[in-house]
Amino acid sequence: MNLDFNKLDGLIPAVIQDHATGRVLMVGFMNRAAFDKTLETGYATFFSRSRNKLWLKGETSGHRLVVKHISTDCDQDALLIQVEALGPGVCHNGYQSCFYRSLNHGKWEETEDPTYDPTKVY
Amino acid sequence: MNLDFNKLDGLIPAVIQDHATGRVLMVGFMNRAAFDKTLETGYATFFSRSRNKLWLKGETSGHRLVVKHISTDCDQDALLIQVEALGPGVCHNGYQSCFYRSLNHGKWEETEDPTYDPTKVY
Repeated sequence: MNLDFNKLDGLIPAVIQDHATGRVLMVGFMNRAAFDKTLETGYATFFSRSRNKLWLKGETSGHRLVVKHISTDCDQDALLIQVEALGPGVCHNGYQSCFYRSLNHGKWEETEDPTYDPTKVY
Repeated sequence: MNLDFNKLDGLIPAVIQDHATGRVLMVGFMNRAAFDKTLETGYATFFSRSRNKLWLKGETSGHRLVVKHISTDCDQDALLIQVEALGPGVCHNGYQSCFYRSLNHGKWEETEDPTYDPTKVY
């Protein structure tokens, strides 16, 4: 039973969820090489669509994602990865989660404070 | 501030999370029309890649997803939608969540029981 990497040009979305709190921290994309690297190292590794190469999350910031649990869905074309997130935040904009904006009466609003200063990390 | 529908042929991944338990139930894809329909109706509506048309989740089964909260990520190219899931399960295979298989020593294993009989629903 294999993952289906054929639907999005070789990529599948990987939902990253905090294993302790259940908070969804980010969505990344993995190709087969990124998934294999994730299994091999125990750290979430994605395929960066903007840089067009493998991307070890936390390579620069140190905010790595330690894999605790991996699930796949019925169609085997998505991953749910529960992690321990090292450091104060996953988002390169300085927030705990990339999902720091919510829809409120038709407008996106920031609903939380940053947890670190990204200019000191990146 | 608009969502970025340009990266995956007009689609963005939408993570569906149970608003009460935090469980991730499924990942669907939305184009702009699906997102607008979701806002308009209050029920999660996706773009079906296999059927190539809008797909009101629960249209056949009645297992609709009542939208409670919508967030977007830093790049505005992913959605996190917290829902109240009507009915016993989101997955068309009969499970509460589509993520009913986990990796265990290199093999995908079912880690939970079905919550309904899909042959009676679909």
